[in-house]
Amino acid sequence: MEEKDIIQLFKTVAQNLPFYPFIKKGIEDDAAVLKFGDVYLLWTTDLFIENTHFRWEWMSPFALAYKALAVNISDIAAMGGKPLCFTISIGFPKEFSKNKLQEFLQSLKKTAQEYKLALIGGDTVESEKTVINISLLGTAPKGQIIFRSKAKVGDIICVSNYLGNAAAGLALLERGYNVEDTIFSSLINAQLFPKPEVSLGQYLAQTGLVHAMIDVSDGIASDLTWICLESGVGAEIYQEKLPISPACKEAAKRFKINLLQWVLSGGEDYCLLFTVPASEVEGLKKDIQKKLKKDIFIIGEITKGNKVYLISNGQKEDISQKGFSHFKDKRVWKN
Amino acid sequence: MEEKDIIQLFKTVAQNLPFYPFIKKGIEDDAAVLKFGDVYLLWTTDLFIENTHFRWEWMSPFALAYKALAVNISDIAAMGGKPLCFTISIGFPKEFSKNKLQEFLQSLKKTAQEYKLALIGGDTVESEKTVINISLLGTAPKGQIIFRSKAKVGDIICVSNYLGNAAAGLALLERGYNVEDTIFSSLINAQLFPKPEVSLGQYLAQTGLVHAMIDVSDGIASDLTWICLESGVGAEIYQEKLPISPACKEAAKRFKINLLQWVLSGGEDYCLLFTVPASEVEGLKKDIQKKLKKDIFIIGEITKGNKVYLISNGQKEDISQKGFSHFKDKRVWKN
Repeated sequence: MEEKDIIQLFKTVAQNLPFYPFIKKGIEDDAAVLKFGDVYLLWTTDLFIENTHFRWEWMSPFALAYKALAVNISDIAAMGGKPLCFTISIGFPKEFSKNKLQEFLQSLKKTAQEYKLALIGGDTVESEKTVINISLLGTAPKGQIIFRSKAKVGDIICVSNYLGNAAAGLALLERGYNVEDTIFSSLINAQLFPKPEVSLGQYLAQTGLVHAMIDVSDGIASDLTWICLESGVGAEIYQEKLPISPACKEAAKRFKINLLQWVLSGGEDYCLLFTVPASEVEGLKKDIQKKLKKDIFIIGEITKGNKVYLISNGQKEDISQKGFSHFKDKRVWKN
Repeated sequence: MEEKDIIQLFKTVAQNLPFYPFIKKGIEDDAAVLKFGDVYLLWTTDLFIENTHFRWEWMSPFALAYKALAVNISDIAAMGGKPLCFTISIGFPKEFSKNKLQEFLQSLKKTAQEYKLALIGGDTVESEKTVINISLLGTAPKGQIIFRSKAKVGDIICVSNYLGNAAAGLALLERGYNVEDTIFSSLINAQLFPKPEVSLGQYLAQTGLVHAMIDVSDGIASDLTWICLESGVGAEIYQEKLPISPACKEAAKRFKINLLQWVLSGGEDYCLLFTVPASEVEGLKKDIQKKLKKDIFIIGEITKGNKVYLISNGQKEDISQKGFSHFKDKRVWKN
């Protein structure tokens, strides 16, 4: 089974269950959207597992707490929302030291403070391997939530950061590199400390210009396929426009790894991938530069059809669903 | 570290984080309470892990989905609430068969339909061992939420079902018994298919008579200690009044296991443990018999102090915190 088939099975279950009018968006977006009174809530959850998402050989308790929270915050950012509060379920072995737990909690506190999050519940259990599940509630003003499903033919596709850095960082960590290797430190930091784009997400939502948005968790090949699937459109991205950092290129060269695979399918960059009308994109780019001191990168265009194509030297390759899949690929090498 | 010390560390983190006025109750109850507009939401989460909470040798995918959902529903019941919708994060090995997943999903659907729950999100990842985290939202009318913290000296302590059945069922399953062993089938069913007391919880909340409530997840010694801790009171329970099923007594005898340990510290019975004023308890008992066709059992009394005592043959034993602790005890024997 592939991950998308499993998700489809869960969707089928969801469709056969009770529906409540307060549910504005269910299983098919970065976060569910619930409406209570005049308040729109965004609800997301992410599971983080030892030897699937990380290995203790290269993950500190400090980085682990940060990242487990950051990937959830990123889901709220991808809807244009503001994160508010979370629960944490954690399973860890009996021999987990008090020091390790305290380092984990210190980082959890620091990260929650940085993003102004309240901790309101959780569960702690014993487990052979470390397991963390965070569930996060956010909010967004009415009419300012960005879904995956509203991309329109002719929209320009943008991303908010380099692609492939996190995947390159993972490859480095798995090879024993660490953040002190200065020429690669940006890559390792991209893997361990991805920055959820909350300010950008909220800014984009306020402009009302963005048609569809998702965060880059499984790589743009997969993440863009979700936008296309939910919006009933296709997409073309231009290889020469993909933003790739010099460090990422250097790492690919050094380890003789296919750079494009990191960039398209590596995932975990947790930047935003979004579509805007062609007439608005240049103005938006300038506004973001001015107000957020940040570049966004144009990488392609929404088209008719239902496939995601990579355009390179006049060639067109179907890359739909070529993103990271938990049940097809290995993120972390198994022992 | 013991579980209560770990929970204390998490509480300390929570106390140093932002507070929002919409948070009416945080980490110290069965579920968090959030208020948006006029709506009170109850939010709970539970982690369910292979070889900690169950083993595939005796847990079917059908029972697993049921129980993972039921334990969350029970948390909402323990606040007097009505469950509404949930997210599910699931990690399982690549070799998990499609049949197994479909059996799991069929049961998830059936259970969700029974309790009128919508499924609105989730996460699926690969994992060496099976891991499930469910996060559940419920609701309750204003003024009808029952906390752990309002028990008063002189209150009568009641439970809504036999104690120890689920622990006895676990011991049987671990010894290779199954549900076909008819004299023990009620015990095995209590372990695999605990019934969350949603109707009773809501009924008790509506009466306005209950001062404090919790569900029996770690055994009454521990669960009652939580009520005492949060309410600033003590408790005495009478050994001869503890409701114990004939099958449970028979199983303890056959396996030469300390019956009282199952009853006080086994946990997982997921019935309700609550306190009511002495003047109201007999009337309430009769009303519940009449309206819900159900017995409740008086087991003790709230006292001054901060300890939970077991009274037996005129002897008084401090049993505070003698419930199941993940980091002290083994629920499932490790391979």
